[in-house]
Amino acid sequence: MNEFALINQFFKSIPQRRDDVILGIGDDAACLRLPSQKDLVISCDTLVADIHFVADWDAYNIAYKAVMANVSDIAAMGGTPRWLTLALTLPCVDKVWLERFAKGLGDAMAPFNLALIGGDTTKGPLSMTIGIHGTVPQNQAIRRSGAKPGDFIFVSGPLGAAAQAVAFLDKKDVDVNHKNSLMDALLYPKPRIDLNHYLLQYASSAIDISDGLAADLNHILKASHVGACLLWDSIPIHPLLKQYQGKKAVEFAIKGGDDYELCLTVPAAQKPHFIKALQEKGLSCFPIGMIEQQQGLRARLNNGDMITINPSGYSHF
Amino acid sequence: MNEFALINQFFKSIPQRRDDVILGIGDDAACLRLPSQKDLVISCDTLVADIHFVADWDAYNIAYKAVMANVSDIAAMGGTPRWLTLALTLPCVDKVWLERFAKGLGDAMAPFNLALIGGDTTKGPLSMTIGIHGTVPQNQAIRRSGAKPGDFIFVSGPLGAAAQAVAFLDKKDVDVNHKNSLMDALLYPKPRIDLNHYLLQYASSAIDISDGLAADLNHILKASHVGACLLWDSIPIHPLLKQYQGKKAVEFAIKGGDDYELCLTVPAAQKPHFIKALQEKGLSCFPIGMIEQQQGLRARLNNGDMITINPSGYSHF
Repeated sequence: MNEFALINQFFKSIPQRRDDVILGIGDDAACLRLPSQKDLVISCDTLVADIHFVADWDAYNIAYKAVMANVSDIAAMGGTPRWLTLALTLPCVDKVWLERFAKGLGDAMAPFNLALIGGDTTKGPLSMTIGIHGTVPQNQAIRRSGAKPGDFIFVSGPLGAAAQAVAFLDKKDVDVNHKNSLMDALLYPKPRIDLNHYLLQYASSAIDISDGLAADLNHILKASHVGACLLWDSIPIHPLLKQYQGKKAVEFAIKGGDDYELCLTVPAAQKPHFIKALQEKGLSCFPIGMIEQQQGLRARLNNGDMITINPSGYSHF
Repeated sequence: MNEFALINQFFKSIPQRRDDVILGIGDDAACLRLPSQKDLVISCDTLVADIHFVADWDAYNIAYKAVMANVSDIAAMGGTPRWLTLALTLPCVDKVWLERFAKGLGDAMAPFNLALIGGDTTKGPLSMTIGIHGTVPQNQAIRRSGAKPGDFIFVSGPLGAAAQAVAFLDKKDVDVNHKNSLMDALLYPKPRIDLNHYLLQYASSAIDISDGLAADLNHILKASHVGACLLWDSIPIHPLLKQYQGKKAVEFAIKGGDDYELCLTVPAAQKPHFIKALQEKGLSCFPIGMIEQQQGLRARLNNGDMITINPSGYSHF
C-alpha cells in the first residue's frame, strides 16, 4: 500500500472542510483563507515514541493527546484554532493502529471544528509532528513578554494530575479509581480555548504550562524581564495529590508537566473585571501570586517564610 | 543542555525576521501578518534518516535539501514562500552536526527571504519535519485539478540527474566529474519559484515532480479527470543520462524522483504568450505533450508507436 492509498483510506473520515479551506489535502499545498483583520498563529509539536508517549499505548490516545497539546499552544495566544497538518512517521502500515489513530485524531479535532488540511506520511521510527494554525484579532496575540510588576498571576485550573498519573504508570498497588481519574487527566487534556476571549480582553501575558508551572511561568518572567512571588498555598492542586505526595504535593504539582492549563497575568486594575467576566460564564481562574520587579521566582509559605523556586520543569534533552 | 539553550545557540544565526513576522520563535506560537487579498498556502514534509537521506550525510546538505523540497511545493501552487517551521528530532546534541545543519538551513532559506518562525526540538531517531507557509493572490492558487483536454504539458527543466546520482551512490568506477555534477542536482535542487508569476498568469494546473514525472503527472490526470499523451523524445533529460542509461534514459528520467522541477499545463490559446513571457525573462519550459480526454498516460515514440506509461514513481511504503 502506498502512502496515497493509506491517507485516503484512514484519514478521509476526519473533518477536512471548513468554509475557510479553499483547497485541502491532495495538492502540493493546502490553500486557506484568513478573515480580514486577523493575524495567523502557528505552532508545531513533535511526539516521539518512547520519549513523549509509550509506543504500545492505544493509538487513539496518542493522536487525541497530540492534537490537544497543539490546541493548547493556540489557546495560550488567545487564538482560535482552525487548521491542522499531520506528519506521521510509521514503521509499517498497521491498519488497526491507523484506524484507532484516525479515530482519536477526529474526536480531538471535532470540538474545535478543526480541519485536517495536509501533512505527510513516511516510513520510519514511530513519531508525529502536528502543525496547528489559528487566528487572533490583529495585533492582539497574547505574548509571554507582556507581564508587568503589579500584575496578578492566575492559573486556569488545578495542577499535577497528569504528573501523578505518570508516577503511577508502573504501580499496581494503587486504587484503580484514583488511577483512572488521573489517567483521564493525562490522556484527555482539555486545552483552554474557552478562555481565549478573556485572555484577549484582560491578560497582559499568557503561557501554556505543559512543561510545568514553575518552568513555564519562568518563561514569562524571562521574556518580561520581571520576577514573581507566588502564594504557596493558593496554588490549586488536584485533590488526590495531597494523599499521594503529602507535604511535597505543591512542589510536585508545579514541577510536573502535561497539565494543559494556562498561566496568565492580569493587570491589577483589570483583575475584578476579569474575575467577574469569567464568573458570568461559569468559568474561573485561580490567583496564585503577583509579578514583581525583583527577578526570580519565589513563593511565600503560609507561615510567612519565603522560598526560592527552582524553575526546572521537564527538559527535552 | 536543554532544548531552549540548544535552539538559541544554533538557530539564532538563521533569519527569523521579516516585516510580516509579528512574533517569531520563543512564544507558544508564532504570529504572522498576511497581506490583504492573499490566500495562505501550507505544506509540510518529513525526512527520516536512512529513508529519505543517509544519516552520515553532511548535515548541511540534509537541511539544505529539506528546505528546497518544501519550497518546491509552494512553487507548484504559484506561491511565494514566507515562513518556515522546523521540527527536529535528534538522537543526541551533536554540536558539529547542529552547526552544519543550521548553516545549510540558513543558506537554503536566504535566497527566498524565508524566516524561521518556530518549531520543536525533540530527542529520538534522527528525522525532521519542515512546515512551509506562503501566499498566493486570492483564488489564484494553481491546483492539480485544472488540466483540460487540449492543454499543453510542460516540464520546467531536464529530468533524471538526481535519480542517476542516487544510482551512482555506491559506485566507485564512475567519472568523478560526472558524479559530482549529478550529486549537485541531488543535493542542491533549485525549486522553481522563479516561475510563480507565469504559473499564476498562464497555467491551468501544476505539480512538483519530486516523486518522478510519471507519478506526479498522473496526479494531475487523476485530479483533473483527463489523460495525457507525451511525445517521448521531447521529454528533456539530463545530458549524462544517455551515456549511463542508454535506450532506457527517458524511462529512467520520468520514473526517477528528486527532480524539483515542475510539470504544468497551459491552455493552447495561452501557449504562445506563456513561451514569449518566459523568453523575455531568459526562462524556458519544455513542451512534452498534451492533455487528452482519454484517461491514462501514454507516449508517442519517434517512430509513431504508442506506449502506455506505468505511472508508478517513488512510493513511500
